[in-house]
Amino acid sequence: MITERFLFGPGPSNPYPEATAALGLPLLGHLDPAFLEIMDETCEMLRTVWGTDNARTLPISATGSAGMEAAFVNTVHPGDVAVVAVNGLFGKRMCDVASRAGAEVVAVEHDWGQPVDVERVLAAHPAPAIIAAVHAETSTGVRSDIAALGAGKGDALLITDAVTSIAGIELRADDWGIDVGYAGTQKCLGVAPGLAPFTINDRAFARRVERPQSWYLDLGLLGGYVGEASGSGGRTYHHTAPVAMVASLHGGLTRVLEEGLPAVWARHEEAGRLLQDGLEEIGLELFAAKGSRLPELTTVKVPEGVDSAAVRRQLLERHNIEIGAGAGAYASTVWRIGLMGHNARPDAAMLVLAALKEALRR
Amino acid sequence: MITERFLFGPGPSNPYPEATAALGLPLLGHLDPAFLEIMDETCEMLRTVWGTDNARTLPISATGSAGMEAAFVNTVHPGDVAVVAVNGLFGKRMCDVASRAGAEVVAVEHDWGQPVDVERVLAAHPAPAIIAAVHAETSTGVRSDIAALGAGKGDALLITDAVTSIAGIELRADDWGIDVGYAGTQKCLGVAPGLAPFTINDRAFARRVERPQSWYLDLGLLGGYVGEASGSGGRTYHHTAPVAMVASLHGGLTRVLEEGLPAVWARHEEAGRLLQDGLEEIGLELFAAKGSRLPELTTVKVPEGVDSAAVRRQLLERHNIEIGAGAGAYASTVWRIGLMGHNARPDAAMLVLAALKEALRR
Repeated sequence: MITERFLFGPGPSNPYPEATAALGLPLLGHLDPAFLEIMDETCEMLRTVWGTDNARTLPISATGSAGMEAAFVNTVHPGDVAVVAVNGLFGKRMCDVASRAGAEVVAVEHDWGQPVDVERVLAAHPAPAIIAAVHAETSTGVRSDIAALGAGKGDALLITDAVTSIAGIELRADDWGIDVGYAGTQKCLGVAPGLAPFTINDRAFARRVERPQSWYLDLGLLGGYVGEASGSGGRTYHHTAPVAMVASLHGGLTRVLEEGLPAVWARHEEAGRLLQDGLEEIGLELFAAKGSRLPELTTVKVPEGVDSAAVRRQLLERHNIEIGAGAGAYASTVWRIGLMGHNARPDAAMLVLAALKEALRR
Repeated sequence: MITERFLFGPGPSNPYPEATAALGLPLLGHLDPAFLEIMDETCEMLRTVWGTDNARTLPISATGSAGMEAAFVNTVHPGDVAVVAVNGLFGKRMCDVASRAGAEVVAVEHDWGQPVDVERVLAAHPAPAIIAAVHAETSTGVRSDIAALGAGKGDALLITDAVTSIAGIELRADDWGIDVGYAGTQKCLGVAPGLAPFTINDRAFARRVERPQSWYLDLGLLGGYVGEASGSGGRTYHHTAPVAMVASLHGGLTRVLEEGLPAVWARHEEAGRLLQDGLEEIGLELFAAKGSRLPELTTVKVPEGVDSAAVRRQLLERHNIEIGAGAGAYASTVWRIGLMGHNARPDAAMLVLAALKEALRR
């Protein structure tokens, strides 16, 4: 029997039909002219969703966390100071990844559920080589002000995690001063997990590590792979591209851009507001700080006396609805409900609300 | 218009229909019990195709080259001597990856087209920490004797690249003394590229680097991800699994094991022999050394006066047949023809032979 789920957790979300359809197309070789065209178009569409003109914008051939690793191993020189804003699990992970790349990490800790305190981050070190922050914290459902970090970054490179923000809420890499950004496909882009949309500007590329510790994620080698150096004719073999996943990303991006980014953002905004208003109406308390709540990923406190896991199990078994547990210390006291990509719709908001209401009554 | 190709190059090959069908199934969450079951079964089937009982056998969430990187970053301690057999592009790449991981590399160079000279490799250093070799060199179409390396490795760890051998020719990781092995999905396994089937035994795991430079490929963290530590209940979140690709690998493996490995190997053997005999019959010269030729990947010299790229282009445009150029210095003087996975069939051999014959007459 085929299991079909409503994926209303923190990701993956149910893909756009165009993304799934592309997975079923006949496979192409990774150097086939027909595939190189798909890859070029994919990179071009990624520029649009990133809000960037960066030539070096590409889908890295691994999941979002590998995008994080690519960001740090290509920019951290031994002993570089990296100021990392930590307001959730993914900020914390950045510290681990940056220190393995040889950075001296200055972690600026925040209470979970709060947005990044821009002034505190900018004051944490007089001359950091890198400032890093998560735009949309998947662990807490919180949005932070990346533009303000970019405005105050000085000579530092700004690395931004946009895994849960890309194609869901406003993201303008160039306008905001993002030097290096990475994302995932499985949230608001509405594609299965497996690729890390990545962008790096000329300023960061010029400062890059010449021979990073990772061969697989070496951006100096990856440039030739996507034909950056000399157009499609100049493709050099680095590794075999995950052709099916790239075709699927192409399908998802085509759908997103046909709808148009402002419309897509508005759809996420509406679905999230419906859900968050509805949760408060039935007496639940939202976890993320007011004013910084992500529409695409809602965090809500588990009411006192309710068995968090039992409710999630009931939703899954009775209605095929997946919602997420909390992260870290909040594993059993918070739920995470995502309405991302294809699921950012009023009907999805109404369904998960109704099902949760029923589960809490039982 | 949809482009449909016969993928007779060095990979990817046309997937088994079961692998493609799985990509179209409804997406599951990466922590869904239904997905964890698919992951467990996938790891179990991977043990069979690797010929191993290793608990730590899993699909790494990136392409085969990331498997190579995982092998070295988890086993190379600073200054460790790694003896690497270099008889083609992928042996050469191992040297680069190993040295970025901090190894003192002793490269044992061979003429391309020749198998690994086991005695020379074993004599290259009195006490290496690591010996590494490619089982089936994708750049040259050559098979090497991994069992002999395993028998003579002494205290060293044996790292083996099985990207182009797994599920195509005999591979017995445990019997042959392979301590760490990595592979790809897009060759004889008949699945799209995107995952790296990986295995590491207890001996190598015990000697591993505690905190490798790569967070993404840290096997100490990946154990929990596939539930090795405490069964399915003990799954810990590391990164979001590429669920669609894992489901597809599950589909491909199911097909391979239903047919049975000996039958699959025999099918590759027969298709390769048909092709190689046929090429010699029409007066072409094979590149790989006699006695060491891979059935799944044939290398053949481009006849004097023939424009290698023009023939490949003609095959692609006239018949939708992809064959590969040569690698490295042999880019324009050798063709690489793969009959791998679902394409390891007499009809595929006959088709590519007939088309090549026609192209050479024009």
